[in-house]
Amino acid sequence: MSLSNSNREIIENAVKAIHARTFFAQYPESPKAYGEEASAEGLKLFNDQLGKKFDQLHQQDPVGWIGEEVSPYTLKPLGITYPCYETDKVIVRAGRAFDEWRKLSADDRAEVLIEALERIKARFFEIAYATQHTTGQSFVMSFQASGPHASDRALEAVAMGWEELQRFPSSVTWEKPAGKGVIKLEKHYHAVPKGIGLVIGCSTFPTWNTVPGLFATLVTGNTAIVKPHPKSVYAIAIVVAEIQNALKQAGHDTNICQLAVDSSDKLITKKLAEHPLVKLIDYTGSSVFGNYVESLPGKSTFTEKAGVNSVIIDSVADLAPVVQNLAFSVSLYSGQMCTAPQNFFVPAEGVKTASGVVSYDEFVKAFVAGIDGIAKHPAMGPGTLGAIQSEATVKRVDAVKDIATLLLESGKVANAEFPDARTLSPTVLEVDAKDFGIYENELFGPIVLVIKTKNTRQSLELAREMAVKHGAITCGAYTTNDEIAKEIEEEMETSFTPVSFNLTGGIFVNQHATFSDFHVTGGNPAGNASFTNPDYVNRRFVWVGHRKNG
Amino acid sequence: MSLSNSNREIIENAVKAIHARTFFAQYPESPKAYGEEASAEGLKLFNDQLGKKFDQLHQQDPVGWIGEEVSPYTLKPLGITYPCYETDKVIVRAGRAFDEWRKLSADDRAEVLIEALERIKARFFEIAYATQHTTGQSFVMSFQASGPHASDRALEAVAMGWEELQRFPSSVTWEKPAGKGVIKLEKHYHAVPKGIGLVIGCSTFPTWNTVPGLFATLVTGNTAIVKPHPKSVYAIAIVVAEIQNALKQAGHDTNICQLAVDSSDKLITKKLAEHPLVKLIDYTGSSVFGNYVESLPGKSTFTEKAGVNSVIIDSVADLAPVVQNLAFSVSLYSGQMCTAPQNFFVPAEGVKTASGVVSYDEFVKAFVAGIDGIAKHPAMGPGTLGAIQSEATVKRVDAVKDIATLLLESGKVANAEFPDARTLSPTVLEVDAKDFGIYENELFGPIVLVIKTKNTRQSLELAREMAVKHGAITCGAYTTNDEIAKEIEEEMETSFTPVSFNLTGGIFVNQHATFSDFHVTGGNPAGNASFTNPDYVNRRFVWVGHRKNG
Repeated sequence: MSLSNSNREIIENAVKAIHARTFFAQYPESPKAYGEEASAEGLKLFNDQLGKKFDQLHQQDPVGWIGEEVSPYTLKPLGITYPCYETDKVIVRAGRAFDEWRKLSADDRAEVLIEALERIKARFFEIAYATQHTTGQSFVMSFQASGPHASDRALEAVAMGWEELQRFPSSVTWEKPAGKGVIKLEKHYHAVPKGIGLVIGCSTFPTWNTVPGLFATLVTGNTAIVKPHPKSVYAIAIVVAEIQNALKQAGHDTNICQLAVDSSDKLITKKLAEHPLVKLIDYTGSSVFGNYVESLPGKSTFTEKAGVNSVIIDSVADLAPVVQNLAFSVSLYSGQMCTAPQNFFVPAEGVKTASGVVSYDEFVKAFVAGIDGIAKHPAMGPGTLGAIQSEATVKRVDAVKDIATLLLESGKVANAEFPDARTLSPTVLEVDAKDFGIYENELFGPIVLVIKTKNTRQSLELAREMAVKHGAITCGAYTTNDEIAKEIEEEMETSFTPVSFNLTGGIFVNQHATFSDFHVTGGNPAGNASFTNPDYVNRRFVWVGHRKNG
Repeated sequence: MSLSNSNREIIENAVKAIHARTFFAQYPESPKAYGEEASAEGLKLFNDQLGKKFDQLHQQDPVGWIGEEVSPYTLKPLGITYPCYETDKVIVRAGRAFDEWRKLSADDRAEVLIEALERIKARFFEIAYATQHTTGQSFVMSFQASGPHASDRALEAVAMGWEELQRFPSSVTWEKPAGKGVIKLEKHYHAVPKGIGLVIGCSTFPTWNTVPGLFATLVTGNTAIVKPHPKSVYAIAIVVAEIQNALKQAGHDTNICQLAVDSSDKLITKKLAEHPLVKLIDYTGSSVFGNYVESLPGKSTFTEKAGVNSVIIDSVADLAPVVQNLAFSVSLYSGQMCTAPQNFFVPAEGVKTASGVVSYDEFVKAFVAGIDGIAKHPAMGPGTLGAIQSEATVKRVDAVKDIATLLLESGKVANAEFPDARTLSPTVLEVDAKDFGIYENELFGPIVLVIKTKNTRQSLELAREMAVKHGAITCGAYTTNDEIAKEIEEEMETSFTPVSFNLTGGIFVNQHATFSDFHVTGGNPAGNASFTNPDYVNRRFVWVGHRKNG
């Protein structure tokens, strides 16, 4: 077995795209690109799975079947159950499978993983419905995020790993002149995988946030245990099943990639994470648990935690497209994205525009109106805001409404297709710059804070401070002044936060493009890793060079 | 300023060498290559410095002058004092200098650092005498290790960093098709340095173990604080002074690289290491302190700690060159190398040779005779064994002689040039495979353990277990059987330990060649970093990409 020509072309194109960082997508993001029948077929598969055992995994002898997923759109349980296993058994199987997988070449592993991605592609629509009815994302977002965007991220990780594994020659003859003679050694170099990788998923992006670490772990020769969030299993279960199918087809042990499901009242994450054979941990979720993961001795960890993303408003050419863009950014999936902006720093002295200064109050009014407009728009509202994944988010929104001046109150988002959906339009609160006790927390969900500052200088200082202390994945900035833009970029860069300037139209601060944008930098408390820089794959294996008297 | 043609050639050749991993040396290891006068000039500079203040640093306002170096060859204090500073002042200066250094391009930084290496080259002989009279290494070893070999390792780190910093384009135009139009963003990517790097030196290899981390930290845009071992300052002080001269010549803040000297009774290492602005820590030394360094939250650490290096004896073509090679390996600098082999696993059933089986006893006898022969050889002895750096090593040798069967007792090594030298020939002890309590410790210094095993299978198991539990930087193996060689390599590789097979003649398991051998793999408890793999430089900076509406 080795890398087929067509798969070699895929991976080589991906490597080129990583280096070029221009637009590239192996998997088109438009549902239409997948044929007219695909959506209906996906929906049928989804409906057929509801209320049944998910029996597609090649993992033997479960000790039980569990499942607790509930659709945020219908508030009804999906009724799907997944096999569960003794954690020790999962570890033993991963350890045994490691012995086989670690010995394969980069080409051999890439072949299996790209085959798996092709299999996953055939199930994008089922994955989309699975994502929609576990996360509350809209259908289109579910499709794009869990389907093509996730698979592109997986491919990116495979390509980066494949390239790094071949960074050094597999063998050389080393000849050192010594007096009249020469000392000769035959040397060879192995990229040795570290062991078992645990990949801990989150409830809101069950595949997008999981597959980069999963495929990075696998391509570098480690075996993987995927521990999904108990409320969001279905989509990643399909991914694992297809990886297992690709492994099986190639004649490999399917335990090279296992799914380890648990339940909310009996979580197995810590037991897995602390096992001495688990050497790699990928994690997306809360800062508290992420910090615990990072503190575990002897593990290489890759975390994405909470952060507070800021938008700095200084000056704009034209107000309307800016507030429209920002209103969409906070509305998209009701602020349940790690990249959603939360803190909007607006100067008390107003916002310069091409047609004069817009006062602070006018700006805020336009921004609030934009948010309210999207939420109340019958067509755009439900498709943009989706539903709320967790009851905890509903409680959080309820709890914050009294802590500051309420500019816009949360309400239901009318959804004709799913009248029972758990929805919430954004709450907008006005906070003074002094009240950092409020805005220095991540308020996950549809909560927007407008922070009145003295001026842009103060806005920048606060945005930077938030990123340094609490982490930030992204930062938006609006200024027509090149000097100020430079200052914002330089200052935010010292907190390792990327800045997006003057976004309007069809591109939003929430979106990080595969092959071009590094997602999370790894430099501030929002996470210690980045999709996908070289470090993201290099920390998963060790270079070992052997020598032999030649 | 940018990279001059000649320095660009140096760095490009180094990059090529890193990738090719064949023999390469920018700095010849033979003292003769540096001209007839160089040694005498270096000795004069050394003698002139003795008993005086080291006043070559561009660091203002010391609070005192301290020094406690003692020559292992004369047992007399060198009498050199170095300026010392309030640690907070050192941090503040490093922080201020960071603002300048971080903004320079990879080319600009490389230019300064290669200029520094050229300046250091002009002082190789003084550095050699400084090393000899602080570490106890022989003159030739002092010259090679602290001079050309160290500078080649520094260049390797600079070249690897320089390449990685340019891994991605500095700017691109990203154009995504969207319906009939296109979304266009201007993006640029910065490799953002993490902050202040602390480089903690050791007493035995004051430059070789320090400059890789130091130059890696600097080329990636961080500022550096070098905290040498209080008993081994002089050699690295010259290195720092020349880096500062190169910085000054280029018009930069000399505090970009500072020396922070302390005294044994008032160490400042923890205070520096725990400072929040210190983001990188390079460390060589004991496992206890190395584990502490690794446990510090929020730091990227690069450690080289203790380990137990094994030699597995299975079968040899010819006995004499093997025992000669091994005897030299354990004698070189009296076992005070992190790469020195300590545990020799010899099967009770004897060692196969081309002329029949050599019994266990015969093998051990020949090995011991080889060691004894080197130590007692009037010319070879002192030049190979050098002197003992620390009184603690003398005490350790004294303490172990009763714990097992003494095969060879330590004694003085006659040294005509330095009759008062603190010398010790190797102690050789015989231990049973059962006595892992003895051989699972690093017994730093001239202590050799011969461990009698049932067979090669047991030897391998024990060698691997030691590496997994206690770390190993290297492993030697002798076998004429290709199957067994493969097994040894595969098994030791699971402990991330490189194996050198059948070394005889002028190459020894202790030696790791720059541009070809990874020194320490980073995969076992002997250390978490490797000179120099991509990870060694990548963990010192963060990729941040900014976007602008195009």
